[in-house]
Amino acid sequence: MTQLSLHPDRLFSSNPTERDIARRLYNEVSAAPIYSPHGHVEASMLLDNVPFPDPAALLITPDHYVTRLLHANGVELHELGLARNGVPSPASGRDIWRRFSENWNVFLGTPVMEWFEMELSHVFGVTDVPSAANADSIYDQLAAAIETDAMRPRALFDSFGIRVLATTDDPADDLAAHAALAADPTFTGHVLPTLRADVYMNPLAVGWKSKLDALSEASGIDCGTYHGLLTALRARREYFIAHGATATDTGVLDAGSDPLTPHDAERLHSAGLAGTLTADEATAYRRNMLYRFAEMSVDDGLVMQLHAGVIRNHHQPTFDAYGPDTGHDLPDRVSFTRPLEPILRDFGTDKTFHLVLFTVDESAFSREIAPLAGFYPAVYAGAPWWFLDSPAAMLRFRESVTETAGFAKTSGFIDDTRAFCSIPARHDMSRRVDASYLASLVAKHQLTEDSARDIAISLVSTRPITTFRLPE
Amino acid sequence: MTQLSLHPDRLFSSNPTERDIARRLYNEVSAAPIYSPHGHVEASMLLDNVPFPDPAALLITPDHYVTRLLHANGVELHELGLARNGVPSPASGRDIWRRFSENWNVFLGTPVMEWFEMELSHVFGVTDVPSAANADSIYDQLAAAIETDAMRPRALFDSFGIRVLATTDDPADDLAAHAALAADPTFTGHVLPTLRADVYMNPLAVGWKSKLDALSEASGIDCGTYHGLLTALRARREYFIAHGATATDTGVLDAGSDPLTPHDAERLHSAGLAGTLTADEATAYRRNMLYRFAEMSVDDGLVMQLHAGVIRNHHQPTFDAYGPDTGHDLPDRVSFTRPLEPILRDFGTDKTFHLVLFTVDESAFSREIAPLAGFYPAVYAGAPWWFLDSPAAMLRFRESVTETAGFAKTSGFIDDTRAFCSIPARHDMSRRVDASYLASLVAKHQLTEDSARDIAISLVSTRPITTFRLPE
Amino acid sequence: MTQLSLHPDRLFSSNPTERDIARRLYNEVSAAPIYSPHGHVEASMLLDNVPFPDPAALLITPDHYVTRLLHANGVELHELGLARNGVPSPASGRDIWRRFSENWNVFLGTPVMEWFEMELSHVFGVTDVPSAANADSIYDQLAAAIETDAMRPRALFDSFGIRVLATTDDPADDLAAHAALAADPTFTGHVLPTLRADVYMNPLAVGWKSKLDALSEASGIDCGTYHGLLTALRARREYFIAHGATATDTGVLDAGSDPLTPHDAERLHSAGLAGTLTADEATAYRRNMLYRFAEMSVDDGLVMQLHAGVIRNHHQPTFDAYGPDTGHDLPDRVSFTRPLEPILRDFGTDKTFHLVLFTVDESAFSREIAPLAGFYPAVYAGAPWWFLDSPAAMLRFRESVTETAGFAKTSGFIDDTRAFCSIPARHDMSRRVDASYLASLVAKHQLTEDSARDIAISLVSTRPITTFRLPE
Repeated sequence: MTQLSLHPDRLFSSNPTERDIARRLYNEVSAAPIYSPHGHVEASMLLDNVPFPDPAALLITPDHYVTRLLHANGVELHELGLARNGVPSPASGRDIWRRFSENWNVFLGTPVMEWFEMELSHVFGVTDVPSAANADSIYDQLAAAIETDAMRPRALFDSFGIRVLATTDDPADDLAAHAALAADPTFTGHVLPTLRADVYMNPLAVGWKSKLDALSEASGIDCGTYHGLLTALRARREYFIAHGATATDTGVLDAGSDPLTPHDAERLHSAGLAGTLTADEATAYRRNMLYRFAEMSVDDGLVMQLHAGVIRNHHQPTFDAYGPDTGHDLPDRVSFTRPLEPILRDFGTDKTFHLVLFTVDESAFSREIAPLAGFYPAVYAGAPWWFLDSPAAMLRFRESVTETAGFAKTSGFIDDTRAFCSIPARHDMSRRVDASYLASLVAKHQLTEDSARDIAISLVSTRPITTFRLPE
Repeated sequence: MTQLSLHPDRLFSSNPTERDIARRLYNEVSAAPIYSPHGHVEASMLLDNVPFPDPAALLITPDHYVTRLLHANGVELHELGLARNGVPSPASGRDIWRRFSENWNVFLGTPVMEWFEMELSHVFGVTDVPSAANADSIYDQLAAAIETDAMRPRALFDSFGIRVLATTDDPADDLAAHAALAADPTFTGHVLPTLRADVYMNPLAVGWKSKLDALSEASGIDCGTYHGLLTALRARREYFIAHGATATDTGVLDAGSDPLTPHDAERLHSAGLAGTLTADEATAYRRNMLYRFAEMSVDDGLVMQLHAGVIRNHHQPTFDAYGPDTGHDLPDRVSFTRPLEPILRDFGTDKTFHLVLFTVDESAFSREIAPLAGFYPAVYAGAPWWFLDSPAAMLRFRESVTETAGFAKTSGFIDDTRAFCSIPARHDMSRRVDASYLASLVAKHQLTEDSARDIAISLVSTRPITTFRLPE
Repeated sequence: MTQLSLHPDRLFSSNPTERDIARRLYNEVSAAPIYSPHGHVEASMLLDNVPFPDPAALLITPDHYVTRLLHANGVELHELGLARNGVPSPASGRDIWRRFSENWNVFLGTPVMEWFEMELSHVFGVTDVPSAANADSIYDQLAAAIETDAMRPRALFDSFGIRVLATTDDPADDLAAHAALAADPTFTGHVLPTLRADVYMNPLAVGWKSKLDALSEASGIDCGTYHGLLTALRARREYFIAHGATATDTGVLDAGSDPLTPHDAERLHSAGLAGTLTADEATAYRRNMLYRFAEMSVDDGLVMQLHAGVIRNHHQPTFDAYGPDTGHDLPDRVSFTRPLEPILRDFGTDKTFHLVLFTVDESAFSREIAPLAGFYPAVYAGAPWWFLDSPAAMLRFRESVTETAGFAKTSGFIDDTRAFCSIPARHDMSRRVDASYLASLVAKHQLTEDSARDIAISLVSTRPITTFRLPE
């Protein structure tokens, strides 16, 4: 058995000068409340507040960060609890935990290991590194823990110190869970909906028509026309705002944003419904929609998050058998500067507009995102995300962005997670890395320690609050 | 009030072994003369030698490194002294300095902060970090300082230790200021013109025809034909050489360099004058001109500086209101290896030809620039420039280029600045970063300290002198 | 004279904490046997076991890592022993060594310097850094050394500790040298052939038809048809397997892998023979072949190495005068995720298939290679190669890949060298850099030292053995 160590200085430089500064900076923010402006936890989980299911269903099966690495090393997704072709996995939670534990070494050096170790230790009180030998005993310990009241979702929400948690929601969602939570005097956190309308952008996407129908029904506005769709989306944005939303999220393959005339857009919408739209027309339709989303944000003040450059569902057989979000969404080369020119020309200096740019192609940080955020008042450099939500990549983000855009135009951390229990670990890692980066500047006399402390505090408070217009 | 500290070890590692080596290396070069082979200071400023205008007009308004970050954080350019739509800014110098001072924090972590602190301290004797509270008192101090004789341009040129300063000039420029300076026995520095003919490359550029007219007049050669334009450019290059020029500069969106036949080029030139040129033809014309500039450099020995991959004037409304060079020229993805194939095929091993490649897309350093400089005798890796003229980016440049191309094929530092008073600070930063990089190699036993010292000295002397053919 | 120092801690951090850990990790692997799964040493050299020719012919002339940097600094390839336009170089070995020695400084900071210093010291017992002054004496020392029995190829193979050495071979090669070595009881190493069939992929390549003829002859199968070519390649793969091969190698400009129908491929093959193939058709033919190579690997288990993104023979005049592999193969921007979609769709989760991806465009590591290796069981992240086979680039590789793909999906080091005597130095550098990287993780408490030691050992044993299916 190897003990989980979780050294208090983890992720800090071992250079004593830097380490001591990093410690002090980290201590200023380690217990600060968590603002989580972008993620995939369900509001209903907090509303219902029922105990979590078994440990594997909580920690492994739904977390594609975990399953993808096991898959890469030869474990079938079916063995990890995922239904295949509609057939439920035969693996029990215990089976899954065993597979996970015996493959622990594949996570070494990855942030999954670090998050998991912190979750196991801080949330569940586990003391040993997972292994084949201790799989059953740790499983039993976890299973017992999640039955206690202290481990129910709301209790954890409080003990994690979460002040704001943003969810991701379809425009047609009635946000009933959000409303109920907001109305519940016993729940004091903020759980904010975020409108994500990607699927309405692409008439060639599977289910576009049925989504239009659902949106027509939810909004009471006929989405059979382009004009109707825009009107419905505007109405739903107001509905979301009324339910606490401060932002939208949009994921696109490229960031093209050329507007169409209403006439042309209407024509493409009709062609989409008629099934006669070409691929190029679908792209034009989608890019126009991105422009319109920006236009709406200028009008209603919802912060616009933009995640560009991801190839979804790269492995068709896995998608066919297991569905989306199963670990094979992969980064593509991405640009922002040219494709966003129409949006930035028209709204880049608008005082109301906030556009937060996220990338998984690191070369965009210094080449595009930082220079854009370093000129346009509307543009914010989004935190390193997904594959880049890891210590070395976060450090490269700061090193690539700060010199061009400073700290004040960066978004603050987002955890983007489905794994509720990993939220504190993810924010803690970010705080450690930022403390470490700031310490390196102080140690090289590029920043005073006073300034570094102010910045460290702003990165976990003012930055996310201001960028995403969060309630304090 | 926070005191400006300017620690003597700034930008060095806090690891004592590395820091001590870096100190020793830096001490070898800290007082070395400044060779500035690429910049945007005006020769007339040194010729006229009149006191600088008010502090804001000297330090803020014309420096788009400074104004762009303030703009990104919500300050209008108009508030910073820039005329808008021809209407002068209502802001006084003192108003502008106040805006700057109260926004000081937006510069934290950026090189602008480091340059400014060194300028304020070393040039002007300011002791405190700018803030809203001290804006007036520092403004008064600066205003008083620039009225003294010690702060006139020539006195600063001497006290800065500048040996060579290259300017950037239109081919039609009569270089009268350069000639007068050269003829003035009381001025012992070298102020060299650099020919920049970008505007002649693009028949679709605003003002192309009037530029041709001006060049016809300056050269006495009719530029109404392509042949005439080439002849005139060759003549002006000789004129520049006679006035001390050792280099040209060229900025292009891409580095394409396919030559055209004289017949085809002539046809495009005519179409340009007739207003019938297409965008593709304009690109072909421009790429042929790049090839011809290289050809001319082979013939007359002017070093060819090439800055590729910049999207000029990204924000059309700002360009319309404020003009160019106002902070929204932005990096594009760039290539060199394929587009420069025609030039390198024909001139890449020519002993006369020096081609210095600059990029603001960092990925080109290890992928293209270093491998090209590591084979072609003509190619030099240009110093990190613009957004990359910053400590971490300079370090990444060395880490990306050295292992493939060594030190001997790098250009030496360029400051590329309009901000005269920032020149010593910019060179000092470069010297510190190079000392720090070399110290890291010595500390890891990859280089002896003797070799590192020789290299450090060469980087501020032999490298720029040889690459740009400067007078010693 | 400067003494070669070769400090025992070279390439380790000078931070004492990290350095001490790195030392301990390195000591675990420094003497481990060498597995060299990809290189360009000839099997016949080991079979014949004759003394090496003169020092320059051994160490300089054939090594384009060395000649390219001298060329970049003004030394003609002809002066370095390369025949020009069929005319042998007039330079003697001693002349060449002198040119090399007087230009020693161009190698400072490059891995060539580090490899050379280690070769000179450890293999030849040289004690001084090469210089103009000692060129003759070191040349004499080297010339005397290579005449001794201890310096013959097989003796060096043993003293270098090489356990497995893979060569690179044409499919038509009879592998007689490999067979003879395998049959020789006095030679106990493994020298494995690797099938490289690039030239058969491109009907527009010079010599395609004559290569088809040679392959027809070697295989006894008519390669005049596409079907015949595939059949012959399959047969030769079996032949290679029978001679110990465990892998193929393929170098392509892009990684496109779209399969064609047999009918279409046959048509393009015929067009190739008829000389009527277009460039686009040639690309389609080549991409189909890449798909077929993957398909064959699934069937026969040969590991598929893929090197994409290299522009071969960039400088046509040098190619015309000196031929290929003369230092001007240059990196291009490269993608894997999209172009490999067909192969990965069909074979990416096949248990038999191993696809090792190599790049010289570093941006692909974090954006494409690591995410692919972090999902697809078949995909391995190939070691940093060529321009990236250098300390800082190797470190960037680990920093870019580990957080997304861990260690278990990386290939282990490859030396890819023609320079036999540099093999130990190259592997030593890799071991030092990996020890240094792992030490940095341990020092930051991201990994226990026990885990780091296990990983360090796996990187020089299990990783190459498993990835490339090598004999232990």
